[in-house]
Amino acid sequence: MARQSLQIELAERPVGDIVPGKTFRQRTLPAPTPSDLQDGQLLLEGLYLSLDPAMRAWLDDRRSYVPPVQIGEVMRGNTICRVLASKSSKAKAGDTVVAMLGWREVGVLPESMVEPPFPLPQNGRITDLMGVLGLTGLTAYFGLVKIGEPKPGETVVVSGAAGATGSVAAQIAKIMGARVVGTAGSDEKCKWLREELGLDVALNYKDPEFRQKFKEATPKYIDVYWDNVGGEQLDMALGRANKFARFVMCGGISQYNAETKQGPKVCTTIKEGGRVLTGMCGQNFFSVISQRIKMQGFIVFDYADEYPAARKQLAQWLSEGKIKRRETVVKGGLKNAEEALVQLYKGSNIGKMLVEVKSPEEASKL
Amino acid sequence: MARQSLQIELAERPVGDIVPGKTFRQRTLPAPTPSDLQDGQLLLEGLYLSLDPAMRAWLDDRRSYVPPVQIGEVMRGNTICRVLASKSSKAKAGDTVVAMLGWREVGVLPESMVEPPFPLPQNGRITDLMGVLGLTGLTAYFGLVKIGEPKPGETVVVSGAAGATGSVAAQIAKIMGARVVGTAGSDEKCKWLREELGLDVALNYKDPEFRQKFKEATPKYIDVYWDNVGGEQLDMALGRANKFARFVMCGGISQYNAETKQGPKVCTTIKEGGRVLTGMCGQNFFSVISQRIKMQGFIVFDYADEYPAARKQLAQWLSEGKIKRRETVVKGGLKNAEEALVQLYKGSNIGKMLVEVKSPEEASKL
Repeated sequence: MARQSLQIELAERPVGDIVPGKTFRQRTLPAPTPSDLQDGQLLLEGLYLSLDPAMRAWLDDRRSYVPPVQIGEVMRGNTICRVLASKSSKAKAGDTVVAMLGWREVGVLPESMVEPPFPLPQNGRITDLMGVLGLTGLTAYFGLVKIGEPKPGETVVVSGAAGATGSVAAQIAKIMGARVVGTAGSDEKCKWLREELGLDVALNYKDPEFRQKFKEATPKYIDVYWDNVGGEQLDMALGRANKFARFVMCGGISQYNAETKQGPKVCTTIKEGGRVLTGMCGQNFFSVISQRIKMQGFIVFDYADEYPAARKQLAQWLSEGKIKRRETVVKGGLKNAEEALVQLYKGSNIGKMLVEVKSPEEASKL
Repeated sequence: MARQSLQIELAERPVGDIVPGKTFRQRTLPAPTPSDLQDGQLLLEGLYLSLDPAMRAWLDDRRSYVPPVQIGEVMRGNTICRVLASKSSKAKAGDTVVAMLGWREVGVLPESMVEPPFPLPQNGRITDLMGVLGLTGLTAYFGLVKIGEPKPGETVVVSGAAGATGSVAAQIAKIMGARVVGTAGSDEKCKWLREELGLDVALNYKDPEFRQKFKEATPKYIDVYWDNVGGEQLDMALGRANKFARFVMCGGISQYNAETKQGPKVCTTIKEGGRVLTGMCGQNFFSVISQRIKMQGFIVFDYADEYPAARKQLAQWLSEGKIKRRETVVKGGLKNAEEALVQLYKGSNIGKMLVEVKSPEEASKL
């Protein structure tokens, strides 16, 4: 019997949260083979699938930086792959590459969707290709170097600091000489941020005294705010912004699943007739003017020409131990990706979240 | 009897709207005289008091770009003044100057709060010192030249386009070669914007079809958005932003008097138990990321070093007829300033709003 390949397709657009078994549909099809390859194509087998907060936005049918995933299409995703066969000069059979394989085990891709192999530094591991040396590390790098531009001694606040991008951004800010405050959703994450990554302050946003502690942690106000979460923390940061602060707008994970998206801050919760209504005020939004804030959104793709130089720098910091990392690897194969994505939005991960589609040891022999 | 001078002081901090006769207190005191002057001071008589949307924010006790006006203090304000006497080299008796005289008829100021006299262009009039050639014109100039940077053929949308700053910003955008869409609160204002100022499109935001018309007026999306109003229009502009759009954050007049300040967009009105609850969503806020928007706040004072060059340019455009202007002058003296300020937030003005403290003809003879 021919080899089979599992793929996961978008079944329906979620309203609010993703529901495993409902939002997606799992299908098993005969896997493509080397004889299916045309010139410029590669046959790839997935090893580690990247799970990214942005994925939720790809499921909504609205104008964004990439077209939405269509109903019935294989879910989009970036994957560390083993090249099974190649009719491209970009990589050869046996190479490990990063490619937009999507949520499937085996697939044929044009070389334009495959990145050239990147040599790992001495202490590097294969999953770094998706973390520190992947799009998340590059996002952290460009967001700080191009937009945040922290100066030595300035205060940088990174929200979602225990996530894949936030943890790298916080460490790069330290390398650049800033005083760094991170926020995260558990005491365990905060401990990691302080004790392993060397942040000056780490605050649990679920702490009842978070608002007060946030204020105390920014006595000289905030010069650079790294926004991964949007919502209430963004509004708090606006309220503590220094003159000429830079707000690096990277993500808004607190809002991605919300049926009603919110700008800065949820401020009032009104209980009426047994129903909870959430009002918004975003009262600090006008700090943008009074403190002359530059709030700038960006997408890492805009800096594609500069990836090689940035990767080289990140690899050096990694080999010097100046950037540390952790991953949350979900075992058991691609079938667990749906539930893992739900967990990502619940903040179950520390560092980069990956699904082990197949471990390098199990991967097909050539 | 010695000459008297009316002054208007802050009596209490307003919650929501300013209430004439309650928010302020009017007091009449003996006017200072030339014999009160020390070295470096000037004795000034107010002619035209500027009314500015920012004034509401000065009344709130919160961190901003200037300290709040204190209870009992004379209300802050910029005024075109006649110099009655001078012990400063900055201006001499008989000169017309712009100074931070505040809401009073006669006062003594240190020269640091007085701008040097500026020669009017051929077709200039005295009130231009507060409009096109004043802080409002300068605000328009720097916001576009330093932040918006429209390129020929790009789409610029100016909210509050019939106001003092908006009307100059819209015309400078035309001079820079952009296609310009303005929004305003009456058909009369829109007619002026189209027929006199030459805007490509002018839309009345009170039109029930405003949302649809806004969309139709921006078929190639928005490259530069001039925000004077905040709130719902800001959110609509986010939803129509082009990639790499620049949002010039100048003001948020729709929110200044709100007891609960709002970030982008009021989106839901829920009627429950006879009570109307307004929810917020600002659902387009994430366009900041997906469209890579740069949203930048600024205060004209930051460019003080460049005022002379900018004023020269504005005076030239004014003399060439490339910038046209209108003013709304409230007669009857300073006592009417409170009510005039309320009218400003109701949008009763077209162009710059001024209170005639004393007409140049009535002003004291030297």
